[in-house]
Amino acid sequence: MTEPAMAKPALIALDWGTSSFRAFLLTADGQILERNEKGRGILHLGEESFEQVFEAATRPWVEAHGPLPAIAAGMIGSRQGWTEAPYVECPAEKASLAAGLIKVGASSGRDLWIVPGLSMTTTGEAPDVVRGEETQIFGAAALRGLESGLFVTPGTHSKWAFLEAGRIVWFATFMTGEMFAVLCKHSILGRLMTEGDHDAGAFRRGLDAAQGNPMLLNSLFSTRTLGLFQQIPASGLRSYLSGLLIGQEINEASGLLNKLGRSVPQEATLIGSASLSPLYAVALEKAGVTSTAIGDEATIKGLAAIARTAGLLEPSAES
Amino acid sequence: MTEPAMAKPALIALDWGTSSFRAFLLTADGQILERNEKGRGILHLGEESFEQVFEAATRPWVEAHGPLPAIAAGMIGSRQGWTEAPYVECPAEKASLAAGLIKVGASSGRDLWIVPGLSMTTTGEAPDVVRGEETQIFGAAALRGLESGLFVTPGTHSKWAFLEAGRIVWFATFMTGEMFAVLCKHSILGRLMTEGDHDAGAFRRGLDAAQGNPMLLNSLFSTRTLGLFQQIPASGLRSYLSGLLIGQEINEASGLLNKLGRSVPQEATLIGSASLSPLYAVALEKAGVTSTAIGDEATIKGLAAIARTAGLLEPSAES
Repeated sequence: MTEPAMAKPALIALDWGTSSFRAFLLTADGQILERNEKGRGILHLGEESFEQVFEAATRPWVEAHGPLPAIAAGMIGSRQGWTEAPYVECPAEKASLAAGLIKVGASSGRDLWIVPGLSMTTTGEAPDVVRGEETQIFGAAALRGLESGLFVTPGTHSKWAFLEAGRIVWFATFMTGEMFAVLCKHSILGRLMTEGDHDAGAFRRGLDAAQGNPMLLNSLFSTRTLGLFQQIPASGLRSYLSGLLIGQEINEASGLLNKLGRSVPQEATLIGSASLSPLYAVALEKAGVTSTAIGDEATIKGLAAIARTAGLLEPSAES
Repeated sequence: MTEPAMAKPALIALDWGTSSFRAFLLTADGQILERNEKGRGILHLGEESFEQVFEAATRPWVEAHGPLPAIAAGMIGSRQGWTEAPYVECPAEKASLAAGLIKVGASSGRDLWIVPGLSMTTTGEAPDVVRGEETQIFGAAALRGLESGLFVTPGTHSKWAFLEAGRIVWFATFMTGEMFAVLCKHSILGRLMTEGDHDAGAFRRGLDAAQGNPMLLNSLFSTRTLGLFQQIPASGLRSYLSGLLIGQEINEASGLLNKLGRSVPQEATLIGSASLSPLYAVALEKAGVTSTAIGDEATIKGLAAIARTAGLLEPSAES
C-alpha cells in the first residue's frame, strides 16, 4: 500500500456538540487530512441553520474531492439538535450504533449521518443516557487496541463506561464538572475563592476529604470553613473543591460498580479533556487505578470506525 | 403576677441575617410586644450603616420605654457583619453563648450585644460552623421544654444539632437549600423544569431514589433523564429534585451520626421555615423519625433566654 493511496479523502466527520463544532476531512482509516473549526455548537448557532453550518464547513471539501459521505456525533443528534437520533439501548456494540444512524438530507442533496446516543434503562432505576461519548469510547478502544476495559470521559457530565468484548455493557453519568462550575460561580463557596494556578496540595486534600466519605452536601461546606479558618489559602479553594468532587465521583462510580457485583479495574482509559485528564489520573492513581489518556482524536477515530461498520466508506478505500 | 407586669418591655431582640432583618420589643420572658421588620439584611444595606439600621429600628422603643438592653443573633456577628463575634467551640451551653456575647457601641451611647456562632473543630476533620441557628436551637428547646434532642433547621444551609443536658454537643451543615437553588437556576437540570405547585408524588419519588443511595453526582442526573423519558412531568421535576436532596441530607446526617456511634433518634424538632418544615417532616417520617415544627419564634425565645443568662435583664423583670 502506497503513501498516496493512504492519504485519499474518504469521509467527512463532524464532532458537533452543545458549545463546539469541529469538522474533519479524513482518510478511510481515520487520519486527518484537513480540519475546520469555524462552525458553532448547537446552542450557539445564532441566525444560522444547522444546514448552513454543515454546508459552509464541508462544501470546499466536496468541491475539491467529489461527493464524500458525512457522519456526525454529539448533541447534534439530540432533541435540541438537527434531528433526534433515538437512543440505542445498552449493551451496544459498534454495529448497534451503525444500525442506529439517522440520515438528514441537506438541500444540496448531500446527506449527513448522525450517530445515536446510548440509553440504559434498568428496571427500578432511573434511565441514564450518553450522546457523543459512545463514539469517543469506540474510538479510544480502537486507538488502544482494546476490546474490553473501563473508559472515563471527564467533563461537564463525566461518563464511566465498561466495554466488554467490544460491547458497551454499562455506563453511568456524574454531574461533576457542572457541579464544580455552578458552585464556583453561583454559590457561597465561590465567595472566598480567588484566582490561582492549580494547587496540587489543595487538590489532594480535597481527594483525601472525599475518600470513604460520600457525604457531599456536608463535605462541600468544608470548602467554606477551611477558607474561613485559613487552613487552605483562598487561591487554593478551587483546587480543593475540584479534588472533593472528583474524589466523590470515584467513590460513587466505585459504589455503583460494587452494587453490580463489579469493581473498579486496575487500569482505565481517560478520554478527552487535556486539562481534566491529568487531575483524574492523580485521583484514579490514589484509588489504585493506573490510567492512559487519549485526546480528542478518539472522536475522529470512532466516527471513522462507525462509518466503516455502516458501509459508508467505499470498499476500495478500506485499509 | 399581674398582666401589666408581664407586659413590661424588657429587651430589644434582633434577628439579623444575610438577607433579612427583624426587630422585636420583648417582655422579660420573651413575649413579643411590638415588631419592626423595616431594616435590611447585612448584604443588602445599600447606603445605610449597621448603626443607622439599628438606630432607626429601635429608637422609637427607647424613646417610649427608656434605655433597654439590645441583643442580636445571626450573620450580623460574622466577618461581613457589624463586628465579628468569634465562634464558641462545641460542646456549648446557653451560658457559653452568654459568655461569648460581643458588645458594639452605637454613637447614641446604646450598646448592642451580639451572640457568637458555634464552631466544631474535630482533629482530622474540616471545621464546621453555625451562626444564628444556635440561638434558634436554645429557643426551640425552651419552647418545647427539652434539655436534650435532635434539632434540624432546614434552609439554604441546613443544620442538624444534638442537644444533650442543655449543651449542643454536635452539629453538622448540609448545603441542601443552596444546592437546590443553584441547580434549578443555573444547571442543565433547570432546563426541563416548568413552574408548578409542589408535587407530592414526585417529591416522594425523589426521597425513594435517595434512600440508601448516597451517590449524588450520579443520582442528580436522573432529574434530567426522568424528564427526558417523560417518567416525571416537567412540572414535577423541582419537587423530585427537592426530594432527592432532602433524602440525601438525611442519608448523610445519619451516616455522620453512625460514624460517631450515634443514630438518628425517633423524634426531632424542626425549626424555622414554614415552607420547608412540612417537606422535612415527610422525609423524616419516611426515615422513621417523628418531628415537631417550631416557627421563627424560636429565635426570639432564644435571644431572651441568652439575654437572661447573660444578666442583661433587670432582676426585677424576670418572670
